[in-house]
Amino acid sequence: MEKRKIKIATIGGGSGYTPELVQGFLDRYDKMPVAELWLVDVPAGEKKLHIIGAMAKRMVAKAGVPMKIVTTMDRRAALKDADFVTTQYRVGQLPARMNDENIPAKYGLIGQETNGAGELMMGLRSIPVLIDIVHEMEELCPNAWLINFANPAGMMAEAVTHYTKWTKIMGLCNGPDNIVRDIANALNVTKDRIYVEFIGLNHLVFAKHIYLDGREVTKHVIDLVTSQQQRVDNPGVGNWNTDFLQSLGVIPISYLQYYWKTRQVLAEEKAAIAGEGSRAVVAERLEQQLFHIYENPKLTTVPPELKKRGGSGYSEASCNLVYSIYADKQDMQTVNVPNNGACLDMAPDAVMELNCVISAHGALPVTTGHMPSSVAGIVQEMKAFEVAACKAAVTGDYGTALKAMTINPLVHSDVDAKKLLDEMLLANKEYLPQFDFSQLEGKTHEEVH
Amino acid sequence: MEKRKIKIATIGGGSGYTPELVQGFLDRYDKMPVAELWLVDVPAGEKKLHIIGAMAKRMVAKAGVPMKIVTTMDRRAALKDADFVTTQYRVGQLPARMNDENIPAKYGLIGQETNGAGELMMGLRSIPVLIDIVHEMEELCPNAWLINFANPAGMMAEAVTHYTKWTKIMGLCNGPDNIVRDIANALNVTKDRIYVEFIGLNHLVFAKHIYLDGREVTKHVIDLVTSQQQRVDNPGVGNWNTDFLQSLGVIPISYLQYYWKTRQVLAEEKAAIAGEGSRAVVAERLEQQLFHIYENPKLTTVPPELKKRGGSGYSEASCNLVYSIYADKQDMQTVNVPNNGACLDMAPDAVMELNCVISAHGALPVTTGHMPSSVAGIVQEMKAFEVAACKAAVTGDYGTALKAMTINPLVHSDVDAKKLLDEMLLANKEYLPQFDFSQLEGKTHEEVH
Amino acid sequence: MEKRKIKIATIGGGSGYTPELVQGFLDRYDKMPVAELWLVDVPAGEKKLHIIGAMAKRMVAKAGVPMKIVTTMDRRAALKDADFVTTQYRVGQLPARMNDENIPAKYGLIGQETNGAGELMMGLRSIPVLIDIVHEMEELCPNAWLINFANPAGMMAEAVTHYTKWTKIMGLCNGPDNIVRDIANALNVTKDRIYVEFIGLNHLVFAKHIYLDGREVTKHVIDLVTSQQQRVDNPGVGNWNTDFLQSLGVIPISYLQYYWKTRQVLAEEKAAIAGEGSRAVVAERLEQQLFHIYENPKLTTVPPELKKRGGSGYSEASCNLVYSIYADKQDMQTVNVPNNGACLDMAPDAVMELNCVISAHGALPVTTGHMPSSVAGIVQEMKAFEVAACKAAVTGDYGTALKAMTINPLVHSDVDAKKLLDEMLLANKEYLPQFDFSQLEGKTHEEVH
Amino acid sequence: MEKRKIKIATIGGGSGYTPELVQGFLDRYDKMPVAELWLVDVPAGEKKLHIIGAMAKRMVAKAGVPMKIVTTMDRRAALKDADFVTTQYRVGQLPARMNDENIPAKYGLIGQETNGAGELMMGLRSIPVLIDIVHEMEELCPNAWLINFANPAGMMAEAVTHYTKWTKIMGLCNGPDNIVRDIANALNVTKDRIYVEFIGLNHLVFAKHIYLDGREVTKHVIDLVTSQQQRVDNPGVGNWNTDFLQSLGVIPISYLQYYWKTRQVLAEEKAAIAGEGSRAVVAERLEQQLFHIYENPKLTTVPPELKKRGGSGYSEASCNLVYSIYADKQDMQTVNVPNNGACLDMAPDAVMELNCVISAHGALPVTTGHMPSSVAGIVQEMKAFEVAACKAAVTGDYGTALKAMTINPLVHSDVDAKKLLDEMLLANKEYLPQFDFSQLEGKTHEEVH
Repeated sequence: MEKRKIKIATIGGGSGYTPELVQGFLDRYDKMPVAELWLVDVPAGEKKLHIIGAMAKRMVAKAGVPMKIVTTMDRRAALKDADFVTTQYRVGQLPARMNDENIPAKYGLIGQETNGAGELMMGLRSIPVLIDIVHEMEELCPNAWLINFANPAGMMAEAVTHYTKWTKIMGLCNGPDNIVRDIANALNVTKDRIYVEFIGLNHLVFAKHIYLDGREVTKHVIDLVTSQQQRVDNPGVGNWNTDFLQSLGVIPISYLQYYWKTRQVLAEEKAAIAGEGSRAVVAERLEQQLFHIYENPKLTTVPPELKKRGGSGYSEASCNLVYSIYADKQDMQTVNVPNNGACLDMAPDAVMELNCVISAHGALPVTTGHMPSSVAGIVQEMKAFEVAACKAAVTGDYGTALKAMTINPLVHSDVDAKKLLDEMLLANKEYLPQFDFSQLEGKTHEEVH
Repeated sequence: MEKRKIKIATIGGGSGYTPELVQGFLDRYDKMPVAELWLVDVPAGEKKLHIIGAMAKRMVAKAGVPMKIVTTMDRRAALKDADFVTTQYRVGQLPARMNDENIPAKYGLIGQETNGAGELMMGLRSIPVLIDIVHEMEELCPNAWLINFANPAGMMAEAVTHYTKWTKIMGLCNGPDNIVRDIANALNVTKDRIYVEFIGLNHLVFAKHIYLDGREVTKHVIDLVTSQQQRVDNPGVGNWNTDFLQSLGVIPISYLQYYWKTRQVLAEEKAAIAGEGSRAVVAERLEQQLFHIYENPKLTTVPPELKKRGGSGYSEASCNLVYSIYADKQDMQTVNVPNNGACLDMAPDAVMELNCVISAHGALPVTTGHMPSSVAGIVQEMKAFEVAACKAAVTGDYGTALKAMTINPLVHSDVDAKKLLDEMLLANKEYLPQFDFSQLEGKTHEEVH
Repeated sequence: MEKRKIKIATIGGGSGYTPELVQGFLDRYDKMPVAELWLVDVPAGEKKLHIIGAMAKRMVAKAGVPMKIVTTMDRRAALKDADFVTTQYRVGQLPARMNDENIPAKYGLIGQETNGAGELMMGLRSIPVLIDIVHEMEELCPNAWLINFANPAGMMAEAVTHYTKWTKIMGLCNGPDNIVRDIANALNVTKDRIYVEFIGLNHLVFAKHIYLDGREVTKHVIDLVTSQQQRVDNPGVGNWNTDFLQSLGVIPISYLQYYWKTRQVLAEEKAAIAGEGSRAVVAERLEQQLFHIYENPKLTTVPPELKKRGGSGYSEASCNLVYSIYADKQDMQTVNVPNNGACLDMAPDAVMELNCVISAHGALPVTTGHMPSSVAGIVQEMKAFEVAACKAAVTGDYGTALKAMTINPLVHSDVDAKKLLDEMLLANKEYLPQFDFSQLEGKTHEEVH
Repeated sequence: MEKRKIKIATIGGGSGYTPELVQGFLDRYDKMPVAELWLVDVPAGEKKLHIIGAMAKRMVAKAGVPMKIVTTMDRRAALKDADFVTTQYRVGQLPARMNDENIPAKYGLIGQETNGAGELMMGLRSIPVLIDIVHEMEELCPNAWLINFANPAGMMAEAVTHYTKWTKIMGLCNGPDNIVRDIANALNVTKDRIYVEFIGLNHLVFAKHIYLDGREVTKHVIDLVTSQQQRVDNPGVGNWNTDFLQSLGVIPISYLQYYWKTRQVLAEEKAAIAGEGSRAVVAERLEQQLFHIYENPKLTTVPPELKKRGGSGYSEASCNLVYSIYADKQDMQTVNVPNNGACLDMAPDAVMELNCVISAHGALPVTTGHMPSSVAGIVQEMKAFEVAACKAAVTGDYGTALKAMTINPLVHSDVDAKKLLDEMLLANKEYLPQFDFSQLEGKTHEEVH
């Protein structure tokens, strides 16, 4: 039987990761023919979009398959009759990320794109755009699946779930797969022999039970991995005190170091800013190098330099997810969807990062029972932050934004939160049309600084 | 790589269904080599066990594989180092089933092996045996999986879950698969194109959502199937008023007719008893014919007459389940395991019949959310009955047995329950060592009759 | 400080119970001055309303307090600026109740005003009227409390909770207080020395824990009361097998006999119909005698004959409840309100009959934890019926009404339910404007009979 | 009827607060005759116990009632046949508290007796003693009520609930009553006209709804109180940003400033240590003055200086609680007991600070529904800390103590936690017999500093 042909729209198509995505679709063309791949971006990203579009077309030409690549700034045209919409945009691009990192640092606080004050601002910028996309999808491609990689991925899925009626969304991150990789390496086995039960939120996920060939080896793996060293913002098993982790009983994703190694991470961030620059500065530099490479008209394969950028693995994860939905594969992948009872400690409608069966009609979480209470505590507090942040993003309510900032464990002060929020709102003004700046600007001279 | 060889012990191995099970293991020998299959039975079943053992050996000889068939009455020898234990025994065999059907009928009530007073008595007889098996497994094969088909299958899994520490048990029934078959027939498609989300208890399960190629078709299927006619005790989609079922919104297994067509089913049972005999009588007759066929020393394949016996499909379901555990297949099957949040209306530790991912480390239920409230009502009432029945079976407490009998919706009277219980306990005395009959027998002459 | 004067509107003011209510308000006049008591009824009850109004005025005159009695058929005028609205109406009055009893009896089924097919019909008639009253209250007296005694009281409160935004409602029944009375009598102590923890639904409530002077005496009380005899429809502790009740561990209200003594109650009902008439016939006769007495222009006190009518105690309960709200008394009473966590086995928004602290801002349920599972089963099944019945009453959807009828444990057959529903809908046509009778009447000749 | 005479045992009877407690019992003597009041203390507190005992006897003599005062170091004799046991002890007394404050300060962290590292150490010292008391009560006064004021009061009740079978315990704090007082003052009304719905944990409680004469005034009160200034460790409504608090929607107890004004509180603590000394130093000074006053053989009334000590109001709260249990008063008070469904966001067995009906058979929480999610986050995180701390206290497990320290929001670093824990364990060695110090002491020279 001939395979059903599909159309895919990728929002933020000018991203340096796109060639990897294109390669993923080309690799799977025989079993899932992508007839059209529309790469969408905003005017500020137009130049990068053209470089990526040209690169993609060269890759398709080399592969010799009839996949049509379209680059456009007309999002509606891209969404029209799409089967899948993937989102990988970054509102304000790397300059906004620099603000997310540098302004908190001035107040002695951690700022990071998916943690602390930085996450809040990234959510305030990104969520309304995703809500707009969803409303357009309701009109233009109501049967499509939305696969969101744009950060903060957990909060993005939470917002769509609570502020629209759209249910066909899965939030995706390469973090869980990196943890599986790290565990497999620690055990010195191939990934297919282990099963890792995940539970938690995006960038706040935990490996609760680990099985090797069907036998539980969690305690053993904890012993193996607590001697490792890892960079905090590179998702993986992290670097922890053994007594602490054995008592915790589960393995946190390395991002937990923002919360359970707060002062050490802050010290590292300060050193980085004083040295080679914050993560955004480094990322900006790597991206420039990468696009320079992409401009080479002879290049037809994904260059090895992409690996350095940090998000590698996303495209593989994404293509696998799209294919499993397409083919009703009913295999297990870890995605961000409403809990629905999978975790007994969280509300059924809370979006969580969970092991799911991926089918043509959706991601079905498998049950995981309770989290250890120590884990439940931080997860519940971060979900409370996410909920407040989503509400602030959608409503533009100042008090709600202030509440979100205050209750974030990396801020935890209504006094600091107010100063930080006021300065960061103003720095992001062009990306936050939902907020009323009239009062805030009046205050600038007297109160903000 | 060479496949790991396994040992299987089948309790109730003298059952007429066993040849089908043997055939299933032979068919899968290449991918799952069953080195030893031990068929265990009790002295009362010795003759049948020998017939079945001989038949099995002829089947193996014909297949030409090194599968060792052992028939024995020494259960401990069979369990020793087994990898899988399957249970398909029936305490008291068909004569006990006749009592389960006929005594309630005398009181104008439905008796059936997995419903009403009959189910209670079958549970009282069967549960202590399963608890004993589990205790032996803890000692003799602590890493084995227990696959229980013995009825009442839901109550059996509930009892093991609550009265032992054993967790490696899955309860299995061919009912869900029969419903998938009926729905596929109604839609005139192959089974692999549809996905049926099940929720409920064993013999009290419901198809909540039905997808064809990823699109929900539940309402359409309800329209299709409400014109069908089905025998009540043949698991499948049943026979219902269309307005009722569309309002219910889900498709009950046909066993629900005991509860939602009570007086009609009772009338049919009375007519059957007056005619060809109750179901047990018919089953007894079919079984005798079947064993006569099995005695033929030339027979080396499963005879077509087995289909008539009613439980066909069990062996296929069973072999698939054993294989998925063995191979860590992570495919979806419907089994009876603790809910663990899959159904939001039931306690996490309640055993339910649920769609699960079958892996080497267990059955992982996928979440299904809420049941429609009308369905939740009957499911919760029947779970209450199961819980009381399990407690009565394990403790032998008369008051608890009376409570179980009274609250069963097919009895619903403490006055009738007392008469019925007293007579049925006495009729089952030899199978109920956990009960104290001293007081009951004293009452016989004056009160029971 | 002068007491705040209040206005009370009583819907169904022509009821024979009203004089007791008037007496209750007169007795409390000093601490809660009821300045105006409006008695409202429909044209069909006009004659009775006038008799009651005249009687009430004589009682007030004798008491010598400035309480104004107004009788009216203008409900809006009565509701305008009311502080409390009490409802005690019966749509279709006793003739409708006769149908509720007699039609099911024709099919060999129990019919009763708050159980089985009778309850369903009473709900279908009464709920839309209460919803209308609530909508008028939103406009005319938005700060008033609605105290509903009209049956089926649990379902009525459930319907208001789920189909309006009104939260200031408490459903009231004299059942719990009668149980306290029966237990106090059994212990031979005064009521103030015992505390009874109630849990369940209206007319389906259970005494879970009983304390005498702070010490639990539940088991002892079960022993004491299981030798008693009680009429099934007279709320109280009922009449049960001791072994059954000790295993249950709680004391059901006598109405449970409809479910746990079904065939015995049915036999009694049949005997009653064949003898002195169904309960409605007896009630009708008692009511005629009572109104004959009320017509006596010399009568100024509640006559002893009222006690025979069965609902005595309602007025005392009602006046106590109104007073506790008025005075912010924060004492404990048992009323029907949303569960809100008080019972762990039921949804937070399910209306239950619970011990509550009665304050000026509402009834605050005290927590009771889990029900015994055997009790949870029947309560959950009956709540499922209530939910379906409420939906049918509000929407007029035939399929939903059929579902409600089918899943009711006193019907439990889609075949019987259909016949019964069709006949009862037609018999109640004038009271069911929300249903579409066009198709049903077309069927009458061929199908209904 | 003659009132039942009772015996009370007060553990930590040498506390400077005891005279207020004695006064409370004397004031209520007519309605609750305390025949014997046993004041118990440890040898380290013997001198203070004698001063307090003498003072108490003078107070009783003045009152002229037959209340026997006994001072003893024999706890078992005091517990024997007691009706109420009240606990107000402080293991290690004020010197231990100084360590709790000063050691964290060395690491730049907040230390306080019921927050952060200080709370953990106080729990590790105090919980095993309370568990011992409970075990003695099981033997010596199994019908007594245990009223615990000893801090950390929430954790203490949590530990007894989870690590003993004792259920007759209520944890008590004057915080909620202080909040009611502050709100009444802000509204300029008497306390009896307002109702405050509390929800949360001890020292982490929130006023969720506030009613004045039955009407909700929560938003208005938030506006009123956000202009106030309050000392952080003096329980009350605190001092918050208005936008933040209106968005939060509830009023936190002032202790929340440790979490939501962390850096400001830390700065104040540092200034205090550099100035008049930490809170423990100030308290020590006040206590010495107070005992000097108590030694005056002419003093027979509670001196006004006691108010300065900070815990004033405890004794009034305690006497009210004891009396309501004694008299089965069924009035509402706010105490620490298992949630049991009162708060929908927390496990039923989690101890919370809740509004309860106080009866002779226990404290019955009234339901409060959900917490705002922002509040639920911090409450759940702190409960996770409490659970870990209780486990560490009972088991003496180092890893669990490290986990508790790490996840505490005022520490949030496994690196800092390890240093802090090691130093604080050693400083508390004499009070922590449950821990194994052999390894820790070996490390001292190399690792701890």
